[in-house]
Amino acid sequence: MVPHLVTSLTGPINELEQRILESMPVIERWFRLEWMEHTPPFYCSVDVRNAGFKIAPVDTNLYPGGFNNLTPDMLPLAVQAAMALIEKICPEAKNLLLIPENHTRNHFYLANVKQLMTIFHMAGLNVRLGSLDPAVTQPTDIQLADGSVLTTEPLIRERGRIKLKHFDPCTILLNNDLSAGIPDILRDLHEQYLLPPLQAGWAVRTKSRHFQSYEEVAKKFSKVLGMDPWLINPLFENCPAVDFAEGTGLECVQNHVDSLLGRIRRKYKEYGITEKPFVIVKADNGTYGMGIMTVRDAKDLDSLNRRSRNKMSTVKDGQALSRVIIQEGVPTSERIEDSVAEPVVYMMDRYVVGGFYRVHGERGIDENLNSPGARFVPMELARLMGQPQIGPAEPNRFYMYGVLGRLALLAASYEMEATDPQAEQYD
Amino acid sequence: MVPHLVTSLTGPINELEQRILESMPVIERWFRLEWMEHTPPFYCSVDVRNAGFKIAPVDTNLYPGGFNNLTPDMLPLAVQAAMALIEKICPEAKNLLLIPENHTRNHFYLANVKQLMTIFHMAGLNVRLGSLDPAVTQPTDIQLADGSVLTTEPLIRERGRIKLKHFDPCTILLNNDLSAGIPDILRDLHEQYLLPPLQAGWAVRTKSRHFQSYEEVAKKFSKVLGMDPWLINPLFENCPAVDFAEGTGLECVQNHVDSLLGRIRRKYKEYGITEKPFVIVKADNGTYGMGIMTVRDAKDLDSLNRRSRNKMSTVKDGQALSRVIIQEGVPTSERIEDSVAEPVVYMMDRYVVGGFYRVHGERGIDENLNSPGARFVPMELARLMGQPQIGPAEPNRFYMYGVLGRLALLAASYEMEATDPQAEQYD
Repeated sequence: MVPHLVTSLTGPINELEQRILESMPVIERWFRLEWMEHTPPFYCSVDVRNAGFKIAPVDTNLYPGGFNNLTPDMLPLAVQAAMALIEKICPEAKNLLLIPENHTRNHFYLANVKQLMTIFHMAGLNVRLGSLDPAVTQPTDIQLADGSVLTTEPLIRERGRIKLKHFDPCTILLNNDLSAGIPDILRDLHEQYLLPPLQAGWAVRTKSRHFQSYEEVAKKFSKVLGMDPWLINPLFENCPAVDFAEGTGLECVQNHVDSLLGRIRRKYKEYGITEKPFVIVKADNGTYGMGIMTVRDAKDLDSLNRRSRNKMSTVKDGQALSRVIIQEGVPTSERIEDSVAEPVVYMMDRYVVGGFYRVHGERGIDENLNSPGARFVPMELARLMGQPQIGPAEPNRFYMYGVLGRLALLAASYEMEATDPQAEQYD
Repeated sequence: MVPHLVTSLTGPINELEQRILESMPVIERWFRLEWMEHTPPFYCSVDVRNAGFKIAPVDTNLYPGGFNNLTPDMLPLAVQAAMALIEKICPEAKNLLLIPENHTRNHFYLANVKQLMTIFHMAGLNVRLGSLDPAVTQPTDIQLADGSVLTTEPLIRERGRIKLKHFDPCTILLNNDLSAGIPDILRDLHEQYLLPPLQAGWAVRTKSRHFQSYEEVAKKFSKVLGMDPWLINPLFENCPAVDFAEGTGLECVQNHVDSLLGRIRRKYKEYGITEKPFVIVKADNGTYGMGIMTVRDAKDLDSLNRRSRNKMSTVKDGQALSRVIIQEGVPTSERIEDSVAEPVVYMMDRYVVGGFYRVHGERGIDENLNSPGARFVPMELARLMGQPQIGPAEPNRFYMYGVLGRLALLAASYEMEATDPQAEQYD
């Protein structure tokens, strides 16, 4: 059962929201035509921020980790999407190999892995777990918080294929974002489907490349709806070589913060928005909410203390942060009870399969909510899927979140095509 | 919200159910391979009867009329399946023309039509209603019980296409079972998709042809699972020319009732089943639960009174009953509170999108429940989709109902291929 949201944005929806709701058949047809040309990146979760005056995706995760936060009622939708995926990729398949993150002692993450296994089992596959961790040399049991047990097994490379002992999969699904680099064992797998593709991993991918594709998608979409793309597109700039710990490259960051704040200020003025602009400075290849900072003035960077610099200098798996994206901050106007909230949309294939609110009681509307202390409140699915009007006085803004999530999904599809190392062969 | 079933079959599941649950990946793969060769008939609802010792579909409706009985939580699944359908049939489509039944004053049926319109609207199409009723010569409003209004419009035939005024659809979806015959306006539509195909209408289709295909499907499926097909297949025989009102052709019915009861008796003996066998005599091309009779002994037919004969002599739209199917009766062991219940499974494309129990307080376990006084209790969707075990003491028999529904769906696909008037061109 999906609980009703205790409180959320319930005021009259603004013009942008109204336009998106009214244009549903046009929007869905536009997506259909886009998906005829582009392949979605298997699965994806997108953080959306709704400022009231603007709504935009701010982070697109190609190795989503929160499937455990989807409610049982959302499961059938994920299973149906998984069935559609299998049919397209290899309908004759019996086996799916899932490669999770190595730090597999986190109970929440393990619950996510278990949920993914359930989804693909229900879609009709035998699912087993393979580990990229060299320390896993034999089948290893991991105890979950609910008492159940997951078994990870060592990967076996045989020429062009990856196997487990007595288990030859057709598809290898990564739920490991490859922050630590692309392992050799995953290279040159020409006989199996490895999804998402290697260029989706943080060893290769950058947020700025993603938001470059998103800008392209946002412009196309905005043209169809006859609106200013800025209303759905977060502006961004980037710096290629920054070391917060050593204090090098900070001038580049300051210059871009300054320039971006100027650009935002002009847009705010154009729309009569009185809020104070801010930007988010974050790792261009980071994840897990690490290495993220809210900046309201370029001068703030002068006074960064050692602790803040150290916090900004490493991201996941001990990787040093060096490339930085400076992104327009989009305040979130959603609240659950007294806490600041932002919608997170989950997709498989081209379908929205669920969503929840990330809620944080100790963060402001201009801060990153993906940090310790966050909790998750499910969204009502029927709304997320697009019932345009729930009741006479209750317009549905959940459909809009699904649209924004899918725009970011489509951008990831453009991005994967643009960064595909094989692509030049076909040019 | 989908309510929990107040009571349902909660005893230990028997061997058949256990085998189906354990074989989930094998079963799903088998369906995937079948769907590579066969196209499902757009949408479908199937009445399933679970006797405990046997479980079988007993009626397969290719123009399902109860979408209004699906809960709001099931809607997203139907929308996702509709999206997949549109993508396959005509992804560039903007418009869908829906042709409902003519007797459009029934509030329950109208709620079904409205629900179908909502599903296809949410999937991204403009949906309008066209009427086969010659009395509809201009747009006509129909008031629904909830106060909303549906508008039906006259169909316009232009050479190879059907249109409404200012509305040119890519696909025409029939929710009219054509009991009254195939109207000329629907023939030879070579430029548009007319779904389901004309041979799905009761003007052409027979139940015995369907169950002939179902037997073929049940045999294939049973071979995969290594079991006796009878455990999922209702035996049947048929008579081509019967007139209950005039009393002609009854000898044929009596002979087949006798022979079928004998066949069932032998199977009951083989499995040590102590229940008393019965058969269902019903119109071979009927619908709406009309013209259906439970017979426990061939002699019962001697003593049919005038009222019973008249009841058996007409089916929907005043069509005379002449072809009769005699089908093995499958008692239902499901109960909701004190009432006899049977599961009904809804599908779109190849996907189970919902289901409910048809419940009747005044009928026995060996009687047709599709009659005035029936009510509908939703099933829990997560179970229907196949979560193999809900709790340690609660095995999931809902997955099995979804499997049985899809076996009948697949049989309908075989049936449509076998009865396709165009098919010989490709032989």
